[in-house]
Amino acid sequence: MLFHSNRRWLLRTAAAFGGALTACKKTTTVEQPEPSDLGKPLNSYGERSPFEKAARLSGAGKNPEIGSSRTPLQDSYGIITPSSLHFERHHAGVPRIDPAAHRLLLHGMIERPLILTMDDIHRLPSISRIHFIECAGNSGSEWGPKTAPDAQRAHGLASCSEWTGVPLSILLAEAGVRPGASWIVAEGADACHMQRSIPLKKANDDVLVAFGQNGEAIRPEQGYPLRLVIPGWEGNANVKWLRRIKVVDQPYMTKDETSKYTDLMADGTARQFTFEMDAKSVITFPSGGQKLAGPGFYEITGLAWSGRGRIERVEVSTDGGKTWQNAGIDEPRLRMAFTRFRLPWKWDGQETSLQSRSMDETGYVQPTREALIEARGANSQYHNNCITTWKISAEGGVRNV
Amino acid sequence: MLFHSNRRWLLRTAAAFGGALTACKKTTTVEQPEPSDLGKPLNSYGERSPFEKAARLSGAGKNPEIGSSRTPLQDSYGIITPSSLHFERHHAGVPRIDPAAHRLLLHGMIERPLILTMDDIHRLPSISRIHFIECAGNSGSEWGPKTAPDAQRAHGLASCSEWTGVPLSILLAEAGVRPGASWIVAEGADACHMQRSIPLKKANDDVLVAFGQNGEAIRPEQGYPLRLVIPGWEGNANVKWLRRIKVVDQPYMTKDETSKYTDLMADGTARQFTFEMDAKSVITFPSGGQKLAGPGFYEITGLAWSGRGRIERVEVSTDGGKTWQNAGIDEPRLRMAFTRFRLPWKWDGQETSLQSRSMDETGYVQPTREALIEARGANSQYHNNCITTWKISAEGGVRNV
Repeated sequence: MLFHSNRRWLLRTAAAFGGALTACKKTTTVEQPEPSDLGKPLNSYGERSPFEKAARLSGAGKNPEIGSSRTPLQDSYGIITPSSLHFERHHAGVPRIDPAAHRLLLHGMIERPLILTMDDIHRLPSISRIHFIECAGNSGSEWGPKTAPDAQRAHGLASCSEWTGVPLSILLAEAGVRPGASWIVAEGADACHMQRSIPLKKANDDVLVAFGQNGEAIRPEQGYPLRLVIPGWEGNANVKWLRRIKVVDQPYMTKDETSKYTDLMADGTARQFTFEMDAKSVITFPSGGQKLAGPGFYEITGLAWSGRGRIERVEVSTDGGKTWQNAGIDEPRLRMAFTRFRLPWKWDGQETSLQSRSMDETGYVQPTREALIEARGANSQYHNNCITTWKISAEGGVRNV
Repeated sequence: MLFHSNRRWLLRTAAAFGGALTACKKTTTVEQPEPSDLGKPLNSYGERSPFEKAARLSGAGKNPEIGSSRTPLQDSYGIITPSSLHFERHHAGVPRIDPAAHRLLLHGMIERPLILTMDDIHRLPSISRIHFIECAGNSGSEWGPKTAPDAQRAHGLASCSEWTGVPLSILLAEAGVRPGASWIVAEGADACHMQRSIPLKKANDDVLVAFGQNGEAIRPEQGYPLRLVIPGWEGNANVKWLRRIKVVDQPYMTKDETSKYTDLMADGTARQFTFEMDAKSVITFPSGGQKLAGPGFYEITGLAWSGRGRIERVEVSTDGGKTWQNAGIDEPRLRMAFTRFRLPWKWDGQETSLQSRSMDETGYVQPTREALIEARGANSQYHNNCITTWKISAEGGVRNV
């Protein structure tokens, strides 16, 4: 009964993979050693198995305080990213902040300037929501012609957590926004004073001043003890280590929204702000660098998300874009959150290409690389949401083309 | 727009807490030190802040391999329990299992006995779902008259994760269940050979053979590399370190379902199996052992869940059960999953008592302690889901009564 919404899909799956287990030994002899020794005792804060090796991957930069590390999407399950594997992006390292000393200042065009302690913030009404955060620079390699070799390096600057925090609208209401105000500037407590301008309309809509991530305090790399979560908007705007919000009447053209995070168009002009992350998807299995064991049944699976709301549909092609099938989607399908899709597939052992394309609730459809370049040129590093093509060789190898 | 479903509640909240921040300093001088030094560099697998101390708590048993540790529900945010803080319960410690050597045997009344490797299992169709797991012995202290002092010790044998795995129905379909079969027996690879009998009807419904937890491999304490997840059913039946499933025609009355996990009734008879966890709730703030800073605004928050489906409503009383208000509920509200509720509250500084009661989609309402004892007597250690009463003293102290 729990799977009612996917019942038809599961039946189709069962039909498709019948016989896939013929490679399994048909015997009732258990080969594994009998358990005998007592295992490890109770402990206060658990760790993963030493056999597990999934890891964030960072480039070989000279300055690891000014860089990014990527989530191993090819090793992910479901829609939650373990906090330990949430992508990182910082411009001055991860500050060590004592929450007892941390303050959030609200000032500018407001009636009642406020300085809040973490205790003050914990005492206010809060809310929890599952949202992805994606760096605007994610998939910057995918403009081509040379692309990143695997899902992690091509798309791993995106992760999804359950965030808990105080709606910024509540803080702004308490502070009393003055007439004429139309933007806020948010600032981090990292050494580079990261600053971003955000329209007041969005600030009053669904933005969280978040202190919780996946059920515990936000992780240091994600902004401990406080970060903005701006559902659906580019990662950089979700200011980490948040210490200041100034209510203003214009965008402030800070270094972090001018020298970086602008999109250079084909004609040499630049888009001033590109806040929303467009609908996107990526097949995480099979994906670049993996190898299929041989012809037979596989479950194709991947992630889809949109900065404009709920994923409505994900289509998968197993013939390089000639034909498309609707993938099954795990519930819940949440707005501005990772969405897990799955499609049963029997590989016949021939060379082919796998693609996925997502459609969000606005009707927007993820474009091909050609369509993206036609619309925006190929000058930008940012906001690449084109369809990824994983080419399967006759030997089962998978590569990004 | 994101908060549409809670918009009315948020407005009510904003009205209630207006003025709650009057204790905050009204100044624009930031007292925290200016950030200056570069922070920590990128890393491959993150850890929580050293300032965070939330921890599982276990009793002072002589044998820490045979016990339980409890989730700090009073420190929780949202509905996801961090895997590091998921409650533990084991009867022979946490086995160290090499996934490359692990096997799952399916045998008994089936056409095609199977031995599956972890690679075989990963290749099959899977699904992800957010579910709570609760030990049948949770809240065993709450029969009274002496109760546990805080939310962790009273209710911390319950946690909630996103689980990913293969529907057991698919494995059973592949194995071909023979006519006459009506139960399965599941066995763990721990040193005590934990075994439980499960009706085939449930096994074919919504049970997962799970390998993923909160986006990564299941944690060792939770059954790495494989556990049964039986949505809504008592924790012990969710066999960890799963190595064997035998299809049979009757329950096997194993040691783990006879010497333990049966409910002794008032008349001395015992209920044979009590699989489903009844609807329950607990206020996590303010809760036992905490202290209110003084009269004024607080957000009451807590968790509700039911083994029979979705939580339909949570009511909160701030006057010891005389009157009740509907609490706000964060989305998503999922079947057999933790559900986060919230209610704005202005404490007038007088002694009072806080209570919550949940109602699930079947219409079942969480009982008072008196009603529970009237129905079941007070002989059982298990399946206590009665309303918790947190008494607030005039000094702001909170205790379980």
